[in-house]
Amino acid sequence: MLQSKYFIKTKKEASSDEVSVNAQFLTRGGFIDKEMAGVYSFLPLGLRVLRKIENIIREEINAIGGQELLMPALQPRELWEETQRWEEMDVLYRFQDQQKKWLALGPTHEEVLTDIIRKNINSYKDLPLYLFQIQTKFRDELRAKAGLLRGREFLMKDLYSFHESEEDRKNYYQKAIKAYKKIFKRCGLDVLVAEASGGAFSKEFSHEFQVQTPSGEDLVVFCPNGDFSKNKEITDLREGAKCPNCLAHLIDVKTIEVGNIFTLGTKFSEAMGANFLDKNGQKKPIVMGCYGIGISRIMGAVAEVNHDERGIIWPEEIAPFKTHLISITAKDKKTDQKVKNTTKKTYKELLDLDIEVLYDDRTEISAGAKFADSDLLGIPFRIVISEKTLAKNSVEIRKRGEEKAKLVKIKEIFRKLKI
Amino acid sequence: MLQSKYFIKTKKEASSDEVSVNAQFLTRGGFIDKEMAGVYSFLPLGLRVLRKIENIIREEINAIGGQELLMPALQPRELWEETQRWEEMDVLYRFQDQQKKWLALGPTHEEVLTDIIRKNINSYKDLPLYLFQIQTKFRDELRAKAGLLRGREFLMKDLYSFHESEEDRKNYYQKAIKAYKKIFKRCGLDVLVAEASGGAFSKEFSHEFQVQTPSGEDLVVFCPNGDFSKNKEITDLREGAKCPNCLAHLIDVKTIEVGNIFTLGTKFSEAMGANFLDKNGQKKPIVMGCYGIGISRIMGAVAEVNHDERGIIWPEEIAPFKTHLISITAKDKKTDQKVKNTTKKTYKELLDLDIEVLYDDRTEISAGAKFADSDLLGIPFRIVISEKTLAKNSVEIRKRGEEKAKLVKIKEIFRKLKI
Repeated sequence: MLQSKYFIKTKKEASSDEVSVNAQFLTRGGFIDKEMAGVYSFLPLGLRVLRKIENIIREEINAIGGQELLMPALQPRELWEETQRWEEMDVLYRFQDQQKKWLALGPTHEEVLTDIIRKNINSYKDLPLYLFQIQTKFRDELRAKAGLLRGREFLMKDLYSFHESEEDRKNYYQKAIKAYKKIFKRCGLDVLVAEASGGAFSKEFSHEFQVQTPSGEDLVVFCPNGDFSKNKEITDLREGAKCPNCLAHLIDVKTIEVGNIFTLGTKFSEAMGANFLDKNGQKKPIVMGCYGIGISRIMGAVAEVNHDERGIIWPEEIAPFKTHLISITAKDKKTDQKVKNTTKKTYKELLDLDIEVLYDDRTEISAGAKFADSDLLGIPFRIVISEKTLAKNSVEIRKRGEEKAKLVKIKEIFRKLKI
Repeated sequence: MLQSKYFIKTKKEASSDEVSVNAQFLTRGGFIDKEMAGVYSFLPLGLRVLRKIENIIREEINAIGGQELLMPALQPRELWEETQRWEEMDVLYRFQDQQKKWLALGPTHEEVLTDIIRKNINSYKDLPLYLFQIQTKFRDELRAKAGLLRGREFLMKDLYSFHESEEDRKNYYQKAIKAYKKIFKRCGLDVLVAEASGGAFSKEFSHEFQVQTPSGEDLVVFCPNGDFSKNKEITDLREGAKCPNCLAHLIDVKTIEVGNIFTLGTKFSEAMGANFLDKNGQKKPIVMGCYGIGISRIMGAVAEVNHDERGIIWPEEIAPFKTHLISITAKDKKTDQKVKNTTKKTYKELLDLDIEVLYDDRTEISAGAKFADSDLLGIPFRIVISEKTLAKNSVEIRKRGEEKAKLVKIKEIFRKLKI
């Protein structure tokens, strides 16, 4: 992609109402644009990151048998009344259409999917079933804040599982935990798997996937030995107390919740009449589980934990591009032409090798401004070609986040990038 | 994909309130599920079709320089007031959030994008610029009807172009027409490119891409020689009148509009102050164009025009799978095992060759029911393996929509499918 043609407008400063690190860097880097509090557009560069996170999730959920569908945002009041959540859910956008019919904007899809299930599933032979979607959710938050961390409109993956028995659901729950760990690892996030309240649905704990960061809104108490991790809401143990399992001292950390999984039991299937006939022909309510991941929130969380003072440091798998190729204008015209030609040739070779590359071909921008932009964008490998590097038949490669750049012979670039 | 594990529940009849052909077949085939009037879920099979249409559009719009972004559905009243469309637009869902702030659900995105543009574009050097999104749109239709043809929530591609001059916009308009023709051709649709009203934005005509079908809501008058085609709304000429260009007799046809392109001129840029500095340093409003395609509507239109009495006949590029592999249970156990083994082997080979295949491995379903389902799903190539075909070392291949099936030697299947 030629940077001169690409819609990236970096900014020296974010607007003063953006206090969170993720909103500041994502706005300054031209990844997102704020429409109003808690509602952002994803500009071309930001959409690339979002799609990569989305695809990692899609791959890993497909790998545990998930089948993707797409449910509506508009949802009729009647469905929400069947589960008594029309009044109960405080963040529900509710409104009337031209015909005075009451609608909600879906913050979640248990009602809609349970309705689909009761219309289509009758027998134990149809179970288990795992259905997920990657879809925009809406929450009427009183205080939307912290950029992509707490939004009013945001992208989520929600997976729902349907089982004959609690036992089968529990087995799948463990599979989901493993898949979630893979997903967050691929997104470059270290997560704590913390026990949390099962909510209104279950006496069991649910599990939250929490990223440690001082900007987090949640509080997790955990044992450094890894055998205890709970959301502060469900434990009286404090920092310094002894771990109930290994007696080590517990630690409090602030966290961002990027995913959660919990049992729904038969709450929705009983309320809505989603039943199946078991092997003996007996009618039973379907046992359900629910598994969420905040896709746009992951993008925000990564920016919160992976940055330095100059910008974001994108993990390779979700970076908007793998390489940022930069040519530095030389004073002498002939030399400059040589620099440009070499850069163009390198650009073409990277494209031919299917290595994603953003090529900063802008001519009226100083080297310093190009480097500042490059750090702000946070692309993993910066490749600089200049008069100086050319004199040594080399290019300069720097990994974002590392101080030292390396001179690499031109013919060895591609081998280096494959590592 | 194993059909026994896949969430497809075909139905013998659609619910009685679905009168349109597309809603009936798409519902009966398990492609979509109706949540309420004008609002549908896309089930796994239907989502596959939707994504294929989406990707064709993405490829062709990328090819004419489009850069993809994603804008919000929630939009603040203030933006719509800047263009006087808050009151004007009759299909706008309007409501207040918890803080009594007025919001709209975007039926289109001129306001949001023009806001992004005025914040980011300053100079002629940034132009032209082509930005598009593939996104859910909302229209508070009094009478949602005809399945996916007139919905309240639906998927669209909207492209917006930004130019220094009318001349440049006009050049791009011609490129867009070409890209649109390619898109509809790849989706298996013949379109008429009809002149229509430029609306409030322009004295020029806009262009609509119209699919002929008796179930269409629009009326187009066109010349069979191809030199005249207008939406009935902008002409007094009727069927039988002489073509103003070639004197042939004009024909009236009912149509479905699947896309449109029109000039916005400087309506939005002037109302919202989206200006640029030209080469002489003079401030001017940006000239804009707008280009829409109904993605879910294409899916409905294809079902309307490509079907027989048994179900949809999907064009190859947007079919949910390329092949439908069906094994027919044999009475004799040993023979049945042989049929199953051959089918499994064929299934694996198709997967290895990256040929998309739905494998009807269901054992308790009669051959007749499998064939009926297969016709209903409308997958282009049906491959049947049975005791009878096996006796001739062959499989039976039938192209959906053709009456005759061919016996093909097993080792020649793959060559046949590549054609």
